[in-house]
Amino acid sequence: MCAKQLQFKGYALTDPSRWTDLKITEFKPKNFEPEDVEIAITHCGVCGSDVHTLTQGWGESKLPLVAGHEIAGKVVRVGDKVTEFKPGDRVGVGAQIGSCLQCRACKSHYENYCPKAIDTYNAEYPDGIVTQGGYATAIRAHERYVFPIPDEIESRHAATMMCAGLTVYSPLKTWGAGPGKKVGIMGIGGLGHYAVMWAKAMGAEVYAFTHDPSKIGDCQKLGADHVIDMTEKEFWKPLAGTLDLIISTIDVFEKNMPLSSYLSMLYVHGKFITCGIPDASNHLPPLHSFDLGGNGCLVGGSHVGSKKEILEMLELARSKGIRPWIEELPMKDVAKALEGVKDNKVHYRYVLTQDIDGA
Amino acid sequence: MCAKQLQFKGYALTDPSRWTDLKITEFKPKNFEPEDVEIAITHCGVCGSDVHTLTQGWGESKLPLVAGHEIAGKVVRVGDKVTEFKPGDRVGVGAQIGSCLQCRACKSHYENYCPKAIDTYNAEYPDGIVTQGGYATAIRAHERYVFPIPDEIESRHAATMMCAGLTVYSPLKTWGAGPGKKVGIMGIGGLGHYAVMWAKAMGAEVYAFTHDPSKIGDCQKLGADHVIDMTEKEFWKPLAGTLDLIISTIDVFEKNMPLSSYLSMLYVHGKFITCGIPDASNHLPPLHSFDLGGNGCLVGGSHVGSKKEILEMLELARSKGIRPWIEELPMKDVAKALEGVKDNKVHYRYVLTQDIDGA
Repeated sequence: MCAKQLQFKGYALTDPSRWTDLKITEFKPKNFEPEDVEIAITHCGVCGSDVHTLTQGWGESKLPLVAGHEIAGKVVRVGDKVTEFKPGDRVGVGAQIGSCLQCRACKSHYENYCPKAIDTYNAEYPDGIVTQGGYATAIRAHERYVFPIPDEIESRHAATMMCAGLTVYSPLKTWGAGPGKKVGIMGIGGLGHYAVMWAKAMGAEVYAFTHDPSKIGDCQKLGADHVIDMTEKEFWKPLAGTLDLIISTIDVFEKNMPLSSYLSMLYVHGKFITCGIPDASNHLPPLHSFDLGGNGCLVGGSHVGSKKEILEMLELARSKGIRPWIEELPMKDVAKALEGVKDNKVHYRYVLTQDIDGA
Repeated sequence: MCAKQLQFKGYALTDPSRWTDLKITEFKPKNFEPEDVEIAITHCGVCGSDVHTLTQGWGESKLPLVAGHEIAGKVVRVGDKVTEFKPGDRVGVGAQIGSCLQCRACKSHYENYCPKAIDTYNAEYPDGIVTQGGYATAIRAHERYVFPIPDEIESRHAATMMCAGLTVYSPLKTWGAGPGKKVGIMGIGGLGHYAVMWAKAMGAEVYAFTHDPSKIGDCQKLGADHVIDMTEKEFWKPLAGTLDLIISTIDVFEKNMPLSSYLSMLYVHGKFITCGIPDASNHLPPLHSFDLGGNGCLVGGSHVGSKKEILEMLELARSKGIRPWIEELPMKDVAKALEGVKDNKVHYRYVLTQDIDGA
């Protein structure tokens, strides 16, 4: 069978002063190597990272730049050494597209923490080729960074699992969400709505925290055992010393955010894991040793997840029938999706569907 | 046998503007209850906490106030319900003198994190009696907060284990210092010198970090496998991604302290535990999610330790022959000791010996 010759083009940022005005632009993919998989993209989720990058909130981006790292598609071609995939397979690609594969982290199923990790877009391969994301016709990736989508999960649903789903699955798994544990999910958006569903599926008692009272009903439908309205004064007081883990998806830290009060809800050695990544100038609220010592708690970070975790997560989604709440739009409406994410209007994730000629 | 009638008096702060000018003052001990132990104090270590409290760095203190919470002495009298002690036993008392004994934490060997924990001095019992510390003739305490000193450990050595020793033992034990783990100890003073010895005895590979190059030889003698001179430029770079745990005893955070660089030395999910408690106005340097996400690390606190941990620690010290490096002074020279602690001149802990008439 002669593989279809893919074209590589996508909705690209060319002028940072008009961050939602993306124009279809051709780009050069990575060089095709024996362990690579070539994928025709069918769907791409829209992540807060895309907004931070396109608005230059994380620093000046490369140009032209195609964002998008919640990718689902079909394998079109595989390199000679690829063992996991064949043309026609439905697969996903997430926020990471490479790493050294040699270091302690890479060899310990922590490739997401490899010091040489390569982001799916706005990064460079060692040879200088710029990585380009999923608002595009196609992507090439090393098979380590390609994930099989189970038959029972539609591609439009699998797409946003690749970043939003994984980013919260990883710390939930790492820090022991499960039976007998009380887990708080703070911020119910794209990441948070997944976190509520995963934590519940893992067997934890789930506390959903939202600043938006209109989401209370949704939190219940997602499976939260308790929903806490963060607009209520001192909402943390009745929960003092209660929670084993808080997964925070907050990605804008207001100056007056009472982080120390949030931490007071943790039980001994409880963990507050921040998964949101704000703009470069937006630090966590100041912490004092007093804030950490009273319950011996910890404030930590997390960065997407490993292939091992993605495969576990997909199996959890398959076996428990967990699906994201999404709104689908054709890729040409990417500006609407980006603005919806920036303005927190989305319930709970936009998924762009392929519409580029020749894709 | 008729128990000796103890007098309760100690070197007390009466005028906060003269924080080292402590005068022998009588005080009212807690009411003697059936589970209480009365102890004639023979030794008391001098802790950084004493300096923070006496200088009013942690807020206005009660007056008059006797500091000191690294206490060793002999049991003189026990209440009817005391089961662990008898007169003549050598015992210690640390930085905590009470808790509710009813809550989840108290019932899980985490009484040091009880929300109703009572500090050994500058706190109040529920009936309003102010707790007074160990620069004194005697102390009364509930037996849960009294610890037997093994025969092989002299009281002058056991005293400083009760706070300095325990404060670093607890997070080392909690966060897995042991064979195969690389553990950094940052700040080699009273706490840090214990931390190096404990971590080594637990089987970890120990990295001692000091800002004082004159302490390098001491670090080696204490058992550190590696000694890092923190005055060297970018000392953290060769250690990137290496350490599993850092115990920081730093209790003054300079504005330009490169915390994010310190965190970069941690391996995946490594922990930076801050045991020092700076003045109330002295926050941790600002943190960004980027600083936590690259290796998924955590920044946490710790607060002394539990009775279970103290007993383990004393057994470790006994079985491995671990002793602190101390300088002994008569209690009347407490000012010299306090100034030595404040100016970081001590190698590595002052222990005051009893000299009050009638003690």
